[in-house]
Amino acid sequence: MTPRKPKPLNDSLLPDVMLTAGDHELIAAANEVLEAHYKPFWHMVAAAIRSENGRIWTGLHIGTTVGRLSVCAEAVAYGRALLDGDGTIQTAVAVRHPKPEEANRELAVVPPCGACREMILDHAPSALIIVKEMDVLIKLPIRSLLPLPYRR
Amino acid sequence: MTPRKPKPLNDSLLPDVMLTAGDHELIAAANEVLEAHYKPFWHMVAAAIRSENGRIWTGLHIGTTVGRLSVCAEAVAYGRALLDGDGTIQTAVAVRHPKPEEANRELAVVPPCGACREMILDHAPSALIIVKEMDVLIKLPIRSLLPLPYRR
Amino acid sequence: MTPRKPKPLNDSLLPDVMLTAGDHELIAAANEVLEAHYKPFWHMVAAAIRSENGRIWTGLHIGTTVGRLSVCAEAVAYGRALLDGDGTIQTAVAVRHPKPEEANRELAVVPPCGACREMILDHAPSALIIVKEMDVLIKLPIRSLLPLPYRR
Amino acid sequence: MTPRKPKPLNDSLLPDVMLTAGDHELIAAANEVLEAHYKPFWHMVAAAIRSENGRIWTGLHIGTTVGRLSVCAEAVAYGRALLDGDGTIQTAVAVRHPKPEEANRELAVVPPCGACREMILDHAPSALIIVKEMDVLIKLPIRSLLPLPYRR
Repeated sequence: MTPRKPKPLNDSLLPDVMLTAGDHELIAAANEVLEAHYKPFWHMVAAAIRSENGRIWTGLHIGTTVGRLSVCAEAVAYGRALLDGDGTIQTAVAVRHPKPEEANRELAVVPPCGACREMILDHAPSALIIVKEMDVLIKLPIRSLLPLPYRR
Repeated sequence: MTPRKPKPLNDSLLPDVMLTAGDHELIAAANEVLEAHYKPFWHMVAAAIRSENGRIWTGLHIGTTVGRLSVCAEAVAYGRALLDGDGTIQTAVAVRHPKPEEANRELAVVPPCGACREMILDHAPSALIIVKEMDVLIKLPIRSLLPLPYRR
Repeated sequence: MTPRKPKPLNDSLLPDVMLTAGDHELIAAANEVLEAHYKPFWHMVAAAIRSENGRIWTGLHIGTTVGRLSVCAEAVAYGRALLDGDGTIQTAVAVRHPKPEEANRELAVVPPCGACREMILDHAPSALIIVKEMDVLIKLPIRSLLPLPYRR
Repeated sequence: MTPRKPKPLNDSLLPDVMLTAGDHELIAAANEVLEAHYKPFWHMVAAAIRSENGRIWTGLHIGTTVGRLSVCAEAVAYGRALLDGDGTIQTAVAVRHPKPEEANRELAVVPPCGACREMILDHAPSALIIVKEMDVLIKLPIRSLLPLPYRR
């Protein structure tokens, strides 16, 4: 008897949400930068971007006394991709460090803030973002993280 | 033969996306403020918020020479709702004025930017936002405009 | 013998740095709003603006989970001055609440952040700002708080 | 008769405001990045930072559809100094490109915005900033560009 094969899903329009080895390498790159530079209040989040050509660019959050004036890790990573690389974003991820008072001491993948979603959508509308949903890491198109964006 | 009746959708969990007369009144309030205060570059967008108690609070975009330091109309409207009202947001909308060089001279409903989505989600997670999709005005939960938000 | 009169300073171009009763009333208005609305993390700073016509407009800081997306109290106060008043700023002040863990429980006058300095300079270049210098409250022109501003 | 000698100013506490060859090199580095990457609306300003160890880090402004969410060139330059270098700022400068419609086609040195002044003061309080005053390029301490900063 021939074994039954699972029917393939019609997923031609879906992005591949599963993480690849390269995506895990991207997370590791962000983690490494955060471990090396973490400073409570001043550097709490790191990011990593993979360019279309496969290179990895990391970034670091820059805290400020007045929080409104801080700079996101994704922005620094993208700035480096622009100046040192080809300025593209295939995949991006951010990780945060626990605060001194938090019990859980693990670095954690965090989604981009609303400002970074706008920046990434403007500059790399096909980018995929690694996020954690229901404790599972997946990869979503930036478009799906900022539905109906402001357009002029 | 009995006519076939369309099967009712199980929409009990869906927000009512259709605009009410009150929603059109909200848009009109935002339009009125924009017509009264529009100033190229300095005041280009207005917003209106309806509180849970039914009152309307309007807001105006505050432009700055350095665009990064500008203030969104939604923030001003929400600040007024906080100080003059009950600080709740049942429904919100923003409208923009065409720029001097644009051919289309109509005021247009625009979605909140990524920063305002964060602010509204933080302060009024049940808020509905009036947006235009495929040229139709609808009302969507703020949660659906910022999926998987950053959380600490 | 005629008494010696002090020679008057040529201060015609200097602003009067001393606080008036009206300035203390402005600080009291900001304090009152902060006492009424203070909420750790979400509303930590209040502001008050006196318009050229003498009216007072207060504002409240709007905190956000992502600090970069927060809104300053001065911006809310100015938005109210624009929509409810004549949109001018003669004098402005901000006050902050101590954080839960701070020993000193007094409200304190704080200077505007760099972003608010830009906004005030753009919209009210003659505004005076109440600040504390060496533990003394004084009033300084906004121009002196943002020397050599960015101009296009 | 002995010639009168000018009395020397007590300038021991003044920074040296004159530009050095190294400062002109810094401006040239910013100009070069801007010439290479300029894109109307998206990349209009470049910056260059010299670290204490003498290295130069450049940065590029990242524009966004919603101007409030843009990223300053200084922030990108500082992020690179943090990740690729020693994270210090001895001297910084920013240059802007004329807009398409401007008659004057020269790149011009511009001062940091209020947000960048806060960031630089927080992270490098001894930094010197190259600015243009009365059409003359000079170097000023960041402290003098943000007097009486917000402090917690």
